[in-house]
Amino acid sequence: MRTSVYRFFTTDPADVSGLVRAIAEGMINPQSIVAIIGKTEGNGGINDFTRTLAMMALSQVLATHLDCRPELVEERVVLSFSGGSEGVAAPHILVFAVSGRAAEQAYPIKRLALASAHTRPFSAQEVGRMAMVRETARALTWLMHTLQVEPADVHLVQIKGAMPALDSATTENVRAEHLRCDMAWSRGASALGVALALGEVTESELSDDAINRDWSLYSSRASVSAKPLLRRSEMVLFANSCWWDGDLVIAHGVMQDIIDVPAIHAVLNQLGLQPVNGQLATADAEKVLAVFAKSDADPRGHIRHRRHTMWTDADISDMRYSRCVVSALLAGVTGETGIYVSTRAEHQGPQGGGPVAVIGYAS
Amino acid sequence: MRTSVYRFFTTDPADVSGLVRAIAEGMINPQSIVAIIGKTEGNGGINDFTRTLAMMALSQVLATHLDCRPELVEERVVLSFSGGSEGVAAPHILVFAVSGRAAEQAYPIKRLALASAHTRPFSAQEVGRMAMVRETARALTWLMHTLQVEPADVHLVQIKGAMPALDSATTENVRAEHLRCDMAWSRGASALGVALALGEVTESELSDDAINRDWSLYSSRASVSAKPLLRRSEMVLFANSCWWDGDLVIAHGVMQDIIDVPAIHAVLNQLGLQPVNGQLATADAEKVLAVFAKSDADPRGHIRHRRHTMWTDADISDMRYSRCVVSALLAGVTGETGIYVSTRAEHQGPQGGGPVAVIGYAS
Amino acid sequence: MRTSVYRFFTTDPADVSGLVRAIAEGMINPQSIVAIIGKTEGNGGINDFTRTLAMMALSQVLATHLDCRPELVEERVVLSFSGGSEGVAAPHILVFAVSGRAAEQAYPIKRLALASAHTRPFSAQEVGRMAMVRETARALTWLMHTLQVEPADVHLVQIKGAMPALDSATTENVRAEHLRCDMAWSRGASALGVALALGEVTESELSDDAINRDWSLYSSRASVSAKPLLRRSEMVLFANSCWWDGDLVIAHGVMQDIIDVPAIHAVLNQLGLQPVNGQLATADAEKVLAVFAKSDADPRGHIRHRRHTMWTDADISDMRYSRCVVSALLAGVTGETGIYVSTRAEHQGPQGGGPVAVIGYAS
Amino acid sequence: MRTSVYRFFTTDPADVSGLVRAIAEGMINPQSIVAIIGKTEGNGGINDFTRTLAMMALSQVLATHLDCRPELVEERVVLSFSGGSEGVAAPHILVFAVSGRAAEQAYPIKRLALASAHTRPFSAQEVGRMAMVRETARALTWLMHTLQVEPADVHLVQIKGAMPALDSATTENVRAEHLRCDMAWSRGASALGVALALGEVTESELSDDAINRDWSLYSSRASVSAKPLLRRSEMVLFANSCWWDGDLVIAHGVMQDIIDVPAIHAVLNQLGLQPVNGQLATADAEKVLAVFAKSDADPRGHIRHRRHTMWTDADISDMRYSRCVVSALLAGVTGETGIYVSTRAEHQGPQGGGPVAVIGYAS
Repeated sequence: MRTSVYRFFTTDPADVSGLVRAIAEGMINPQSIVAIIGKTEGNGGINDFTRTLAMMALSQVLATHLDCRPELVEERVVLSFSGGSEGVAAPHILVFAVSGRAAEQAYPIKRLALASAHTRPFSAQEVGRMAMVRETARALTWLMHTLQVEPADVHLVQIKGAMPALDSATTENVRAEHLRCDMAWSRGASALGVALALGEVTESELSDDAINRDWSLYSSRASVSAKPLLRRSEMVLFANSCWWDGDLVIAHGVMQDIIDVPAIHAVLNQLGLQPVNGQLATADAEKVLAVFAKSDADPRGHIRHRRHTMWTDADISDMRYSRCVVSALLAGVTGETGIYVSTRAEHQGPQGGGPVAVIGYAS
Repeated sequence: MRTSVYRFFTTDPADVSGLVRAIAEGMINPQSIVAIIGKTEGNGGINDFTRTLAMMALSQVLATHLDCRPELVEERVVLSFSGGSEGVAAPHILVFAVSGRAAEQAYPIKRLALASAHTRPFSAQEVGRMAMVRETARALTWLMHTLQVEPADVHLVQIKGAMPALDSATTENVRAEHLRCDMAWSRGASALGVALALGEVTESELSDDAINRDWSLYSSRASVSAKPLLRRSEMVLFANSCWWDGDLVIAHGVMQDIIDVPAIHAVLNQLGLQPVNGQLATADAEKVLAVFAKSDADPRGHIRHRRHTMWTDADISDMRYSRCVVSALLAGVTGETGIYVSTRAEHQGPQGGGPVAVIGYAS
Repeated sequence: MRTSVYRFFTTDPADVSGLVRAIAEGMINPQSIVAIIGKTEGNGGINDFTRTLAMMALSQVLATHLDCRPELVEERVVLSFSGGSEGVAAPHILVFAVSGRAAEQAYPIKRLALASAHTRPFSAQEVGRMAMVRETARALTWLMHTLQVEPADVHLVQIKGAMPALDSATTENVRAEHLRCDMAWSRGASALGVALALGEVTESELSDDAINRDWSLYSSRASVSAKPLLRRSEMVLFANSCWWDGDLVIAHGVMQDIIDVPAIHAVLNQLGLQPVNGQLATADAEKVLAVFAKSDADPRGHIRHRRHTMWTDADISDMRYSRCVVSALLAGVTGETGIYVSTRAEHQGPQGGGPVAVIGYAS
Repeated sequence: MRTSVYRFFTTDPADVSGLVRAIAEGMINPQSIVAIIGKTEGNGGINDFTRTLAMMALSQVLATHLDCRPELVEERVVLSFSGGSEGVAAPHILVFAVSGRAAEQAYPIKRLALASAHTRPFSAQEVGRMAMVRETARALTWLMHTLQVEPADVHLVQIKGAMPALDSATTENVRAEHLRCDMAWSRGASALGVALALGEVTESELSDDAINRDWSLYSSRASVSAKPLLRRSEMVLFANSCWWDGDLVIAHGVMQDIIDVPAIHAVLNQLGLQPVNGQLATADAEKVLAVFAKSDADPRGHIRHRRHTMWTDADISDMRYSRCVVSALLAGVTGETGIYVSTRAEHQGPQGGGPVAVIGYAS
């Protein structure tokens, strides 16, 4: 088995020309596509319809090749888009394909492995609670088992967190203030599920009360968004595996705060890449194929004891600012603006910081 | 003579408590203050009144100590504020004071020297034309002469460009489309004036036509904003001089594009500072006292052949984005968020890039 | 012949459920659809992809019924979306269908008639010049002839103005400053084309110089947007005709400035509707089926000698403000928030004002 | 006693030239000024410093005339500024002065009377609770008694609600989630205090639980903002009194939803003004001297069963939209853009609506 990653820079959210051409030229076998993850130029907010547009356009392309109706494409391929290409970030899509057959014996070097799974459907009452933490952990553990990887081999778990519709029975029986069926809770519980499965926290440390409250508990590898009306959480696991072949590897690290540049260097170093005067030389920049990060403007209002104004600006959301900052730093260090930063990082890295993962060509 | 720089982080644009206390405690002699430069948390646009507020608050404080009416303070002290602390930038003010007497002989090591000057008043027809270029160059040349510094010693020329009111005679006699009395033209001509005085361009390369058109001509040390209704341009020259004493030095460089991190490293290196894993260690970060830069989102729409969306976002101005990006990079490298980035950099560095200057303690 | 108009309020830009259901239930014959005009909840700017999304979603629906590929739907049905539902405006789509056969003799009462046409393709050099004015007028004249209506019967001409791509030959031969191939010029020349065809201006008053300069020249019935890369302008003519049957009529008027409420009353009066205490009673509000207007924040910065701040707000575009204001006034008077306001009204009503058209049930 | 109202349109938030001139010319006696209420062109959010700027500029002017330090001006004159002149609203200040001596017997006609008061200081625990409701009601009752007016004579109670700083004792003893010391709670409890004093609600209907929850309880005359760090609430009472003389009267009404134009007509009718075709004729518009309203985008997401998008726009705050809408409607009806609309109307009118008050010349 091997993972291939194709990166296409887009001219707008509906631009699928790169993928269409790659399929037409035989470079990509549409049957092999497992996931498409992309960054669109929306505002990342509730009224960001660039994600819908990108997914609709891609679904139409894939439907033809997978011989299914467009609305069924998502049952076969994970489509995950994050809006917001603030600052230098270049809108792009990453197509992840898996090909080849299972290895009969382990390779000497670990290479990028990839698989996706769903949790079971959640009820509205479970979201943001231990039930969601545990089920997320269970699904991830199963996925690791399937891929034959250890927690230490896992470098990124990209999750679209469930947020089921409220039915009238629920809203009658549960006082609204006790429900946690919103995006922040879905993200927080999902991230702790990853932390639990990867051994970053122990179950004894966890409780309903700890979720979105005890920020000392976090995963260094979870990257979670939440999607209204989604019943089951979707996850894609990225790991290095000795059972996988190919020329790609992944590494990760954690920015301790929003200007933690050394953490970015450390991730690149794991890939054998060494910035010179703070930035990868061109030849090395070309070895970087995908950069993922989560961002957050520190809610305590300070960065290294200095005030920041990302939360007090009534005109521009802190979300847009934090994505802009983190993608600038990642682009500054890698010399490449094809950066994927998504925001709101509850239990994904420490408060005010966040995880970073980079996929590159093995040196 | 020696320059002292005091940095005060503010809680809001009207916060003058740091300066008030420093004067009360005798740390700063108000008579010695030559300039106050600051970053406020406004939007940096035409309706950014945080600058007015900061200047009004400071004028009230200084008026008491200088024994003049608040509205006359600006005749004695340059007050220059830039709105926009997007992302990580911490709003702050920098108080520049000069004390001591002229040296009788040169010191062995050059230290930060500082002086301010005005051009003569401009007519509306002169703005954005060679008349403005030449007069700006003349005023700067005179200032260098006064300070006994060579062009190579100059590291930053902070200018507030004139933009006189249009009188009715002007608007009757000159067709509106031939007038250049706006902010962009004032900045462009002022910057070329600096470039001319510093020998970065020759007079034969310059013409009315070249201004805001031939972007190969630029200064690496000009930092210009323009101010409506200002009749004379104000400038503050920052240089290293062997006739000045003290513990501060200044260095500069040019970012060739908006993610040119190596250029930032090069400036720090001149100050004897070496980032480790991309960032100054804490002890070194504390040696950095002031960071100035100009920013621009490349108007050609690309950064290193990748598309950026800073100009096509109808909700957020490219100005806010570019300041956010450059201050993130400067904070990332220096480990310090007290960064001053101002935007629109016509002839200030190459198109899409911009100058950077850093004041630090001499090692 | 008769025109039917169906209004569907949408839950998001991709919501086509209303139309799908109406077709499934036999209420709308998809073959009879001539145009779909809608308001989406984007920002109305260059990065507003809600229009693309709405059109992609509708094209998929219509493609099935018209038995053509989705990308060919626009050759048969005019799809025209305007982004920006600021304030009270409710996002909605209006489906215009034409059915029945040509009348053999005139009806006693005029009813809503409707037809669409294209201009010939324009070159980039023609945009914003008399060539575009004349060709727009020619196409509209032909359309009036086809529909057998007089200029006085025409109440709205909705145009998507051409803005062809620049080829390299053009940009080499024509100095960029002489080209008018942008949105403002396309709108201005198209609107004057309407004014010319409707006899609102005479050809002798018109010239290349008058376009987007002499604001005393305008149409009271043009509603123009411009679309990058469109080679031919598209137009939909709305008129009352004695050759058409049905229960719908249209009326129009001109707001002389952005708070000209009496002009709105006058339009409603033409439809036999009389606001009570400034607003239509519920039963009368239900007789209003579609409300169209163009808006502009007066570029002179004043409304009835009072300053407004729509142009000096660096955070929010004047376009968003003016749509918000005009839709609030129209909703206030009609008691109905299903309002279509689009902005930038060069030669569409007087400067700072704009045309209004209302389709209602005949009393 | 008589109330005089002077309206000055400003060129920017620091523009005090109108007041300065009026004082210099003897038109306004500075000793007679009771309150200055104004609208500035900020964003109305937490980082809107235009209010601070306006108050600083006015305090400097008044300090000279009242012979006190600028920071003490607010102890003698209520300065109340609301940021946000979205859409057509013209930034302006209203200077309220009281002159003359107490009448010995009642006049035959009631005229505008005005007085200000403070509550006692509140603790952080009291904010948003019945203690605040009762003390606000007590202060208002006392003020009515002082002015010799009945609840039915009261047409506007402008309040700046207290929001004291949290001391460490408080935050230690009270679990954060039980504290209500924020702007929404301060506004809600203050408004219910007005409702209680005016007999619009009974004390038995009120409880801690009802505050900011039972929206059927509201005042039709409260207009409340909240100010961080304010220890006592400030209030200005506007009434018609038979003990007051002059040529001004006030009337009020309640918009039941955000497009309730008939409610605006009803208020004008009370002043003897009758819009023609939906708008006051010029001569009548000039009789309107001040227009106050509170606005809110209906949090239920609908206006008359149609969806609105004011809450789902991640780029522009619902607060800016609702002010833009309500000021457009008020300007549309009165023909005057000098409108004061402030947003967030908890218990000030019904949910999604809000109170309106107009001061005009007696006919």
